[in-house]
Amino acid sequence: MNARDFGIVCGILPTGEKNAITDVPGVRVGHHTIREGDINSGVTAVLPHAGNLYRKKVLAASDVINGFGKSTGLVQIDELGTLETPILLTNTFGVGTCANALIREAIAANPDIGRQTATVNPVVCECNDGPLNDIQAMAVTEEHARLALANAHEGAVEQGNVGAGTGMTCFGFKGGIGTSSRRFELDGQTYHVGTLVLSNFGRAGDLMLPDGRQPSPRTAKEAEKGSVIIILATDVPLEHRQLKRVTRRCGAGLARLGAFWGHGSGDISIGFTTATTIDHDEKSDLFSMRALNENRIDKLFRAATEATQEAVLNSMCAAEAMKGRAGNFRPSLADWLR
Amino acid sequence: MNARDFGIVCGILPTGEKNAITDVPGVRVGHHTIREGDINSGVTAVLPHAGNLYRKKVLAASDVINGFGKSTGLVQIDELGTLETPILLTNTFGVGTCANALIREAIAANPDIGRQTATVNPVVCECNDGPLNDIQAMAVTEEHARLALANAHEGAVEQGNVGAGTGMTCFGFKGGIGTSSRRFELDGQTYHVGTLVLSNFGRAGDLMLPDGRQPSPRTAKEAEKGSVIIILATDVPLEHRQLKRVTRRCGAGLARLGAFWGHGSGDISIGFTTATTIDHDEKSDLFSMRALNENRIDKLFRAATEATQEAVLNSMCAAEAMKGRAGNFRPSLADWLR
Amino acid sequence: MNARDFGIVCGILPTGEKNAITDVPGVRVGHHTIREGDINSGVTAVLPHAGNLYRKKVLAASDVINGFGKSTGLVQIDELGTLETPILLTNTFGVGTCANALIREAIAANPDIGRQTATVNPVVCECNDGPLNDIQAMAVTEEHARLALANAHEGAVEQGNVGAGTGMTCFGFKGGIGTSSRRFELDGQTYHVGTLVLSNFGRAGDLMLPDGRQPSPRTAKEAEKGSVIIILATDVPLEHRQLKRVTRRCGAGLARLGAFWGHGSGDISIGFTTATTIDHDEKSDLFSMRALNENRIDKLFRAATEATQEAVLNSMCAAEAMKGRAGNFRPSLADWLR
Amino acid sequence: MNARDFGIVCGILPTGEKNAITDVPGVRVGHHTIREGDINSGVTAVLPHAGNLYRKKVLAASDVINGFGKSTGLVQIDELGTLETPILLTNTFGVGTCANALIREAIAANPDIGRQTATVNPVVCECNDGPLNDIQAMAVTEEHARLALANAHEGAVEQGNVGAGTGMTCFGFKGGIGTSSRRFELDGQTYHVGTLVLSNFGRAGDLMLPDGRQPSPRTAKEAEKGSVIIILATDVPLEHRQLKRVTRRCGAGLARLGAFWGHGSGDISIGFTTATTIDHDEKSDLFSMRALNENRIDKLFRAATEATQEAVLNSMCAAEAMKGRAGNFRPSLADWLR
Repeated sequence: MNARDFGIVCGILPTGEKNAITDVPGVRVGHHTIREGDINSGVTAVLPHAGNLYRKKVLAASDVINGFGKSTGLVQIDELGTLETPILLTNTFGVGTCANALIREAIAANPDIGRQTATVNPVVCECNDGPLNDIQAMAVTEEHARLALANAHEGAVEQGNVGAGTGMTCFGFKGGIGTSSRRFELDGQTYHVGTLVLSNFGRAGDLMLPDGRQPSPRTAKEAEKGSVIIILATDVPLEHRQLKRVTRRCGAGLARLGAFWGHGSGDISIGFTTATTIDHDEKSDLFSMRALNENRIDKLFRAATEATQEAVLNSMCAAEAMKGRAGNFRPSLADWLR
Repeated sequence: MNARDFGIVCGILPTGEKNAITDVPGVRVGHHTIREGDINSGVTAVLPHAGNLYRKKVLAASDVINGFGKSTGLVQIDELGTLETPILLTNTFGVGTCANALIREAIAANPDIGRQTATVNPVVCECNDGPLNDIQAMAVTEEHARLALANAHEGAVEQGNVGAGTGMTCFGFKGGIGTSSRRFELDGQTYHVGTLVLSNFGRAGDLMLPDGRQPSPRTAKEAEKGSVIIILATDVPLEHRQLKRVTRRCGAGLARLGAFWGHGSGDISIGFTTATTIDHDEKSDLFSMRALNENRIDKLFRAATEATQEAVLNSMCAAEAMKGRAGNFRPSLADWLR
Repeated sequence: MNARDFGIVCGILPTGEKNAITDVPGVRVGHHTIREGDINSGVTAVLPHAGNLYRKKVLAASDVINGFGKSTGLVQIDELGTLETPILLTNTFGVGTCANALIREAIAANPDIGRQTATVNPVVCECNDGPLNDIQAMAVTEEHARLALANAHEGAVEQGNVGAGTGMTCFGFKGGIGTSSRRFELDGQTYHVGTLVLSNFGRAGDLMLPDGRQPSPRTAKEAEKGSVIIILATDVPLEHRQLKRVTRRCGAGLARLGAFWGHGSGDISIGFTTATTIDHDEKSDLFSMRALNENRIDKLFRAATEATQEAVLNSMCAAEAMKGRAGNFRPSLADWLR
Repeated sequence: MNARDFGIVCGILPTGEKNAITDVPGVRVGHHTIREGDINSGVTAVLPHAGNLYRKKVLAASDVINGFGKSTGLVQIDELGTLETPILLTNTFGVGTCANALIREAIAANPDIGRQTATVNPVVCECNDGPLNDIQAMAVTEEHARLALANAHEGAVEQGNVGAGTGMTCFGFKGGIGTSSRRFELDGQTYHVGTLVLSNFGRAGDLMLPDGRQPSPRTAKEAEKGSVIIILATDVPLEHRQLKRVTRRCGAGLARLGAFWGHGSGDISIGFTTATTIDHDEKSDLFSMRALNENRIDKLFRAATEATQEAVLNSMCAAEAMKGRAGNFRPSLADWLR
C-alpha cells in the first residue's frame, strides 16, 4: 500500500510513472532482508547506473540535516562532488562491514585500485533499529551486502519492512523503506526527481498528515530519536552546488511531517544526478557539462520536498505491524488509516 | 490580531506570557515606519539587553537556510559566536545605511573603537519589499535607524505593517513583523525561546495552516521569492554549537507553513542567548559559563520550530491589507480567516 | 618594487606576463586614494570584465579563512555561485557606503533592479586601517567608490600605499595592495591564476621569507590583527565547487608567510572565473558550461598558493614607509631588504 | 631521532616536557605494527583519558582541510561536539574493520549501548599506504585494533615506521607517526597543545624546512597525494567553537612545510580537550564548564601550527628508510639531514 491508496497526496507536482526513485532512468534498488529470531535488519542498495560506477562516477552531494549519525563517505562526496560506489543502507553497527563489502566489490571490478590508481570511497548510511533488532549482535555480513547489490533491479521498489528498513520505527509506527518521485518539464523534455528513504525518526504523536490529521499510536511518547536517510536521484543536469541545494530540501519534507530534526536523529540526505558522469580516466584537461538555469531550480526544490514527505508516508503505509526484539511492538500506519 | 485569535495554534508547548520575543527577559524591540507616497518601508531593531552591548556581548549564532540574501555581519557571528550591536532589520537596499548607523552608535558609546580596541561588527538583515515599496529610492536613512533603536522597549511588540515589515509580502498576503514564544522548565526553573520574524516569503497558494487549510489570495501564482528573517532569543545557557543547532530549527517552522526555502528567498535566522555575556574587557584568561545538557535540547528545538511557524502566522494576522507602489495590492490573511 | 626585484621568488610556477591579476584577460583594477591629514585610506575596485556584470555574472566562490571580519556579500556568493557587482575593497567602516555606491551603480545600469527583476548583491571587503587612518571619521564616500570604479583599467596594477591599501600594516611593516599571477597549460592552451591582496595582517616578527629569513621591524610585538583580503581571478573553466577548492588555497599562501590566521584577523578570499558567464536573462532551462578535469586541479592549487604568498610580499615591497594618524610609523620591507 | 636532533625547530613556543601529545595529562598512545611480506601497515590508537570514554566523553571538533579521504565519525563529532571512543588511525581499507572493533569494545564496556541507551560513534582516520603496503589484502583485523588499544600508554610515543605509520610516505621520503607539543601559561598555570600526525602527504621536492632548505629525494616527482591525519589534544578549557578554530590551524602547519593541501590528499584534523568531560548519564539539565577568553586564543593557534609542522618533521626524522611492496623504496629524511 502507498499513501495515495489512502487518499493522501503530498503537494501539487505529478509523480513519475512508478512514483519511485527508479523513475530516474537507470537507477536500481536491491534489498536483502534478515529475519532470524531477534535479528530484524538488512541491507538496501541504491545504484545510480548499471555500469562500472568507479570508472563512470556520478555527480553527488550530501546534506547533514542533523548529524547524530554514523554514515560514512560524506566527506569525500562533498569535496569531490562524486559518488563512485553504490550507496548501501543498513543498521548503525553494520556500516563498517558494508563498507568493507563495497571496497571488495570495487577492487574486484577495478584491480588497479590502491595500486596504479587511487583508493575508493565506500558510501554507507544507517539508522538504529535497536528497538526491534538485536543490534549488538552485529549480524549484517559482507555476504548480506553483496546479496542486496545483486538483487538490485529497475522497476517497482519493494517498500516497508524490507532490506535496511526491516526493523525501523517512525513516529511510533512501523517505518522502513519508502520511495516517491516527481516529474516536470525543462526545455520541453520530461525530467524526474526521485527519493528513497530509510525512515526511523519522529516522536510518537508528532506525525502530521497533509490534511491536518495527527495519527498517534497507543504507545508512550518517547524522544524523537532514530534517524532518517534520504537518497535523492535526478536526471536533471546540475552543477554540484545546485545539487547540494536540491538535496538540502529533503529536510523541508521531513519538517512537513511534524519532525523538527530531533537531537537524537541522524538525518542525512545524499543526492546524485545521472545526467553527468565523471570519467575516472578522463584524458582531456577540460570537459563539457550541462547545468540548470538557476531560475528554474524551484521545480526541483518543490519536487525534493514533496517526494521526501511522500516517501516517508509510503514507507509507513507499506510497512506491516511487527513484533521484534524483546517483544517490542510497532503498529502499522496503514491499520490506523483504514 | 494574532493567529490564536483565529483559533490557530502551532504545536504543543505553552507560550510565554506575551507570546513574544520579549518574553525573554531584557529583550527589547523598536520600530520606525516610513510611509510617504510610494515609500512603504522602515527599520526594526532587536536589542538583547539594555546595557552596552559592545562591552557585554551576548552569545550568538546564525543559520543560512537559503542564502539568496544580503544580510551583513553573519561571518563574524559564526567565527566569534558573539553579537556586539543590536540587530537591525530593513529593506534590501537599506543595509549599508543601517550598518553605518550602528557603527556610529557603537563609536558614540565606546570611543575606543578603532583606536585602542578593535572595530565593531554591525548586524543588519533584510528582505526585498520592492513590490510595495520604491526600493530604488533608498529611502532609509541613518536617522530612521536611530529612531528604531530609540523606540526599543520591553513588553508587547507591535506586529504587522510596522518598521521593516511595512512593505512585506508573505504567501501572496500582506506580511511583516510577527513574534511568538514558548516556555518550558529546566532544573525547575522557567526558560523561554522567543522569535521575531520579518516575513516576506512564500508563493501565493503554498501556505498551509496547521489544520490543513490552504489560504490562497486571488492573485497570480508567482515564484517563491522575497525572503524571511528570523531572530531567535532565549535565556537558556548554551554553548555556541548548541545555539546554532537551535537556530537551525527555525527552518523547520518555515517548512511547516508550506515553504520549501525557495530559490529567490533569502532565509536567514540569527539566534542569541542572554544567559551568557562575554566581557569585551575580560581580564582573566579563563572564565566559567553554563551550558545545556544536550539530552534536553529537543525542548528548544521544538520551541524554535513552533515559535517560528506561529510568528509568521502572527505577522500575517496582524498585517492589514495594503495598496503600495504602482497600485500593487496585498490582501490580509486576517480577512481571509474571518 | 616587487619581491622579485629583491630576488625573492615564491614557488616554482612561471608568472603571467605582468605578474598581476590583470594577466587574466578582461580583469581590471582601479584605485582611489584618500590622504588628508589623519585620513589615510581609500577604495580599490576589481572588475571581472568590461561588460554589464549584473547581466553577465561570473562564477564566484568565497572562503572564510578566519571570520573576524565585516566583508559583505559572501552569503549570496556561496549560495548562488555568482558575482554580479565589482568587488570593492576599503576600510572596515567604509563597507556600508561602498555597498550603497555599488547598488546605485547597478540600478543606473539596470533600471529593472528591484522592480521587474531581483535586487542586487554588493560585494565589499575590508581591513582595519585604524593605526594609520582615522577610521572613526568614516571618510570614505560613495563618490570615492565611484572614482575607484571609474579608474579601473587593464594592464599594470598600482601596488603598495594606494586605494584601500593606503593605510594598511603587514607584519609590522607597511602593507597595502599587492598582486601576482601564475600561468600553466591545459589542453595545450595557456591559462592563468592571478591574485590581488589587501594586506593588513601578521604580527611583527612572524614574517618568513621563502629563503628562511625573518624580517622584523624595530617595533613592539603586537597580537596578529588587522586582516587580509585576497581576490583570486582565473580564466580556467571551473564548477563552483572546484573554484571554492582553489580559492581555499589562498590560506596556504598566508601560512607560508608565517601567519597562523590570527584571532583578530579577518582573512577572506573571493575567487571568480571569467571562463563562464551566467546570463541574468537566460531563456533556456539548461545550458552548457565547461569544467576542469579534477585530476589537474593541483596546478591551480599551487598557483593560488604561490600567487597569494607573492602578492603579499609585493604589497610590502611596493609600499613606502609611512607616518599616519597620531604619528604612528610603519617602515617599508623594501628598506629592510636593501 | 627528532627534528630537534638535527637542529630543526618550528616556531618560538617552548615544547612540553616530552615534546609529545602525551604532554597533555591523561592522553595515551598505542601502536600495533604489521610487517609480513608485502603487508606493511598497522593501527595507532589515541585515547584522551584512562576512563570509560563513552560515559565521560571529551569535547571534540574536526576540520576537513581537504576532503579526499575516508575517515569516519566526523559528522557526529561536529554535530554533538564530543568524542566517545578512542581515535584509531590505520590504512584506508582498514577503516570499517577498526570501526567494528571500536563498537565491540564500547559494547563490552557499556552493555546498555543499542538497548537502553543510544548507539556509539566510532572514530577512525586513515591514509593510503598503497605504495608500500598491499592495501588490497585488507590485512588489518579487529584483533590488530584491539592490540593497538591495549598497547596504549602515557609517556614517550614511538614515532616513525610504527602502527598506522608503518607504510606511509611523506614528500617522497618515508613518513609515518610523529608527535610534538607546545606549552604556555593561562591564569598563571601551565597548559599544553599536543599533536600526533600520520604523515603521508606532499609531493617529492615540495618539502620546505624552516631554514629555507628544500630536501628532495632522488625519485620521480609525483602528484601530491596520500593524506595526513592530525590529532590535536589540549588541556585548555574550550567551547566547541573555540576548539574547532584551534583545530583548523593544523592546516597552517602543513602549508609551512610546503604543502598546498593537494587534491589527492585527505587532510583531516581532529581536536579534543581533556578539560571538560560530558557525562553520558548527566542528570541535571544545565551544567557548568569553563572556556577561554577568546582574546588569548592566539597562543593556541600558534601552538597548533607549530606543533603540527614539527610533528610531521619528527615523523620523517624518526622513520627509517624502507623497501615495501613491489620493491618500492622510500629514503629517510634523517639520512638526508645527516
